[in-house]
Amino acid sequence: MAFSTLLASSLRPTLAALHWAACRQCRGLSTPQGSEPSLNLGGIFPPLATPFSPTQEVDYAQLEGNLHRYASISFRGLVVLGSNGEYPYLASRERVEVVSCVRRALPRDRLLLAGSGCESTQATIEMTASMAEAGADAALVVTPCYYRGAMTTAALVHHYTEVGDASPIPVVLYSVPANTGLDLPMEAVITLAQHPNIIGIKDSGGDITRMALMVHKTRQEDFQVLAGSASFLLASYAVGASGGVCALANVLGDPLCQLDHLCRKGQWQEARDLQYRLIEPNMAVTRRFGIPGLKKAMEWFGYYGGPCRAPLAPLSPAQVEELRSTFSANGWL
Amino acid sequence: MAFSTLLASSLRPTLAALHWAACRQCRGLSTPQGSEPSLNLGGIFPPLATPFSPTQEVDYAQLEGNLHRYASISFRGLVVLGSNGEYPYLASRERVEVVSCVRRALPRDRLLLAGSGCESTQATIEMTASMAEAGADAALVVTPCYYRGAMTTAALVHHYTEVGDASPIPVVLYSVPANTGLDLPMEAVITLAQHPNIIGIKDSGGDITRMALMVHKTRQEDFQVLAGSASFLLASYAVGASGGVCALANVLGDPLCQLDHLCRKGQWQEARDLQYRLIEPNMAVTRRFGIPGLKKAMEWFGYYGGPCRAPLAPLSPAQVEELRSTFSANGWL
Amino acid sequence: MAFSTLLASSLRPTLAALHWAACRQCRGLSTPQGSEPSLNLGGIFPPLATPFSPTQEVDYAQLEGNLHRYASISFRGLVVLGSNGEYPYLASRERVEVVSCVRRALPRDRLLLAGSGCESTQATIEMTASMAEAGADAALVVTPCYYRGAMTTAALVHHYTEVGDASPIPVVLYSVPANTGLDLPMEAVITLAQHPNIIGIKDSGGDITRMALMVHKTRQEDFQVLAGSASFLLASYAVGASGGVCALANVLGDPLCQLDHLCRKGQWQEARDLQYRLIEPNMAVTRRFGIPGLKKAMEWFGYYGGPCRAPLAPLSPAQVEELRSTFSANGWL
Amino acid sequence: MAFSTLLASSLRPTLAALHWAACRQCRGLSTPQGSEPSLNLGGIFPPLATPFSPTQEVDYAQLEGNLHRYASISFRGLVVLGSNGEYPYLASRERVEVVSCVRRALPRDRLLLAGSGCESTQATIEMTASMAEAGADAALVVTPCYYRGAMTTAALVHHYTEVGDASPIPVVLYSVPANTGLDLPMEAVITLAQHPNIIGIKDSGGDITRMALMVHKTRQEDFQVLAGSASFLLASYAVGASGGVCALANVLGDPLCQLDHLCRKGQWQEARDLQYRLIEPNMAVTRRFGIPGLKKAMEWFGYYGGPCRAPLAPLSPAQVEELRSTFSANGWL
Repeated sequence: MAFSTLLASSLRPTLAALHWAACRQCRGLSTPQGSEPSLNLGGIFPPLATPFSPTQEVDYAQLEGNLHRYASISFRGLVVLGSNGEYPYLASRERVEVVSCVRRALPRDRLLLAGSGCESTQATIEMTASMAEAGADAALVVTPCYYRGAMTTAALVHHYTEVGDASPIPVVLYSVPANTGLDLPMEAVITLAQHPNIIGIKDSGGDITRMALMVHKTRQEDFQVLAGSASFLLASYAVGASGGVCALANVLGDPLCQLDHLCRKGQWQEARDLQYRLIEPNMAVTRRFGIPGLKKAMEWFGYYGGPCRAPLAPLSPAQVEELRSTFSANGWL
Repeated sequence: MAFSTLLASSLRPTLAALHWAACRQCRGLSTPQGSEPSLNLGGIFPPLATPFSPTQEVDYAQLEGNLHRYASISFRGLVVLGSNGEYPYLASRERVEVVSCVRRALPRDRLLLAGSGCESTQATIEMTASMAEAGADAALVVTPCYYRGAMTTAALVHHYTEVGDASPIPVVLYSVPANTGLDLPMEAVITLAQHPNIIGIKDSGGDITRMALMVHKTRQEDFQVLAGSASFLLASYAVGASGGVCALANVLGDPLCQLDHLCRKGQWQEARDLQYRLIEPNMAVTRRFGIPGLKKAMEWFGYYGGPCRAPLAPLSPAQVEELRSTFSANGWL
Repeated sequence: MAFSTLLASSLRPTLAALHWAACRQCRGLSTPQGSEPSLNLGGIFPPLATPFSPTQEVDYAQLEGNLHRYASISFRGLVVLGSNGEYPYLASRERVEVVSCVRRALPRDRLLLAGSGCESTQATIEMTASMAEAGADAALVVTPCYYRGAMTTAALVHHYTEVGDASPIPVVLYSVPANTGLDLPMEAVITLAQHPNIIGIKDSGGDITRMALMVHKTRQEDFQVLAGSASFLLASYAVGASGGVCALANVLGDPLCQLDHLCRKGQWQEARDLQYRLIEPNMAVTRRFGIPGLKKAMEWFGYYGGPCRAPLAPLSPAQVEELRSTFSANGWL
Repeated sequence: MAFSTLLASSLRPTLAALHWAACRQCRGLSTPQGSEPSLNLGGIFPPLATPFSPTQEVDYAQLEGNLHRYASISFRGLVVLGSNGEYPYLASRERVEVVSCVRRALPRDRLLLAGSGCESTQATIEMTASMAEAGADAALVVTPCYYRGAMTTAALVHHYTEVGDASPIPVVLYSVPANTGLDLPMEAVITLAQHPNIIGIKDSGGDITRMALMVHKTRQEDFQVLAGSASFLLASYAVGASGGVCALANVLGDPLCQLDHLCRKGQWQEARDLQYRLIEPNMAVTRRFGIPGLKKAMEWFGYYGGPCRAPLAPLSPAQVEELRSTFSANGWL
């Protein structure tokens, strides 16, 4: 029986839907100023790691296996081919196939956000269209960055406006300075928030002042701010973020959904205790050991990790040990 | 009638004390793990601007005038000669005199934290002793930074251990990378938190993940974490900080104490709305326009601002206009 | 009559060959330690701008026109699809077609270095093979950079070793931190210089100490160091570099070849006077105004410039004026 | 017999004077555009390390001993209390005493450049006057940096203009971003070069394009550019610098003066071979191991090194070993 059938026959999505509806009343998180967002991004999204076979081919069977395991976790949806999906290492064709595969396995009530950013505006428009056709609910569009010295506010506003105009699906901005060396400027975010087809931003920079200011300055718009990392998820919720796209959710999906739940219910003390235990594991699978660390940790929690594509290198035994002790010291192993 | 007499005869400190006692029950902020801190740093501290006359002499009368005006605000205490006090522009003698002057004017129930950091360990030890003698309750010791390439974790731990050992008063670490180009490393903080005479840190870097991790990793110690800027005060409280040392408190002391109060009571929604309105004014009097901007804004709110010492330059008329519009756009003017 | 025929019937290449042979005796530049390099990279290479039509299609006719105009300049060769060729904006197919087009137009005694770097090792290997097939004499392989936190010395050595092993043509390393946010580490360069199929590096970082150290530490190898920008060309020659890949050579090819010539002959005083006049124009067409500035300046010197692909934006009239005055103030217009 | 007497009775200064006179004819370095500089800074200056006793007191006897040993080296002069002199760790009184001590020991034909920079303009003016009184020939004034965000071109031009106006001795600008986190902006340098009492700059940043452009843009002025480090000395001379202030000259004074000599005579090939061997030792006593490394290396070459003031920490045995091997691998030990 296929994964999607399994899911369709379960009650979990329905329960989850009730859960979210109930939580709209929770006083913990900020309530929208006016009408509901066109596409509710509230909740946790794992940015899926892309499984490769030992020969570094995309392993679709393992991908479906992981999706099956994630089905019992109350994620709001999935990000496919974000930075943690090694998208720069996939050919255009592969990028679309991976999204198609995930869409087939994913129940319709789960959102599929597909990374579609390319360096040129034209290529981004085309990739976004392909992602829409492959079933994505929204496109996650990373800032072009190779010519970062020329990526002025004006240039970026123009780029995203063109993409937003052309896209058949809503667009989510994506700022990830650790990878791009570029912060999408605040003025650009505020301007772009007014575009009817641009509905939010994933910000991975970790500057909480910037997060708060983005929420504040876009409150009149149909625009949602997502934390780009588990390390500052509670703080982001505290200043008004709607959800989080967290690499660590590939490994510790349930605790992250629980943290989301506690914040929504205003149980900040419990939330804080949970947040504390997630910081070091999160830093280990992002800044410290990157995707090779993320995939290694996934294996300890029952998921398929496998190799990365080169030039990303596997961890040394000493690094594996350090990674493992980070998880055990915080009570996860 | 002197300022200190005025304060002594009022009931305000007593009320404030009751207020804090009550708030220990508030569920909003984290409760200490074990016993009470040796010196409770919970609350808001303005890092006093140092008033200069038109000829750039320290103006002690204006300093007392400002202290008088601050007396009605429920600050936990004052920081004297932090970065906003232009301490690098004061001679050693002047630094001690300013602290003595403030001590005379300040009621004993308000804490006086005096900046005593110098580049060399020996000079820091001597300045800290002078500050203690001048009446400081604790010393705020900025990281030495000129040889930042050599300021390893080991060197900094040694420096602060020597200072902590020698100091007659408790020591608060001070990390302010915008000025020093140096983050006090996390490992150093964790090690130094175990020193019996090192009771906390003021961190102005704004990295909320780091703030959370510092709270988490020092919870077993008599150690408190203070946010070094108003921009991320709410978020810092959300992750367990004890208080804030905020340049903006020279200007908007009451709203900042109100924000502190809301967070302690767990009224996060109201806190958030207030926090939003404080970010842009805070950025304007720190990163954007610095101390000249801070002093200009102080004048609009009834305090003495006056000139900075050179090479800090006064704002241009256009900059004054921009500064003013930042305050008015957020409803403060 | 085609460009290649024109060139074939001229004597210029032969004269140029004589010129270089004579210059081997020049005492100005360093002589190789032992045997001659397998592929002599000594001299100036313009990193060709890629001409686009008003609709942003590759304009092959204009490309051939520019090549025709460059034929009278004593370049050592051309770089095709370096950073200034907007390679991240070209599809794989376009990248190969552009190289094929240039190869057809270029006489065999001019070197064609083709940019073939991709993010993944496998894609880089494939693109390098395609470039070889399209007629490139060597491949210029930029550092992969999206996961820069994971691009350790070991990972980069592994990447380039795989590429060098697989490549049918010699490989030139390419470090351009302004675009990639990544310096190829010195240890990696020294190790890779020993690979028989890795023959040099283009370094655009401008750190002259690093340039000197690279020359020094690879002197026993068949390895040549190329300056990646006209701003520090003379200084690079002074510390032993073999040549330069200079964006400004798209505009001021003759003066750059003259600078090369003066350095080789040891006429440092004249070289210095020429170098001085090239710095500001070079900064204007690189760091200051980027490729849109480069293409605009090309038009003033008789070349086709045309638009860039989006999101690179055209200069404003004020920027054009500033660019122009930089060239005129230095006596070029 | 005192050191100064020894020097006065020797012929060495006279020979050195002849040497420099002869070299004015050398075609290697650039000749001044018009008249001679008011104070010729051409040549090598060691920025003296300040000797401390085991109890970290200034050790004047060891200082004189080192000066005695330096007397046989054809330095143009000495820098006293530059960054390598640990000036931020000396009290004002000590700074003046050290300069007085050096002046007494130094023959009048050697230049004494004294570091007099402080954070405030007023303190810098006073310290500069004290240095003049103590016998300094010129003042080396580092950029104030604690409020680096506010140190705009305008603020810095104002600061240095005030200092230049007030100073009884010529002023040399000093930009050392590794310590200050601040590059003195090019526009500030160009403007300040026109001040009649500002005669040059020591630039330690190592950006050779900037060095060349500074020489180029100030050629009409009485202004000389000094390289701030031995690593890029040859390259700086190649682009027109007048001399060098090199930490390594505390250790390898003769080779650096020889490099200066070779560059002046236009013997670039020999110069290059010497430059290569100096880079790694220089990096080891600056960026890599800092002043503790510099002082350790001094001991191997017959000078007094001794401890640094805390918080600068002594090298570990492993670091000493690494430092030593750097010198031996380059043929100096």
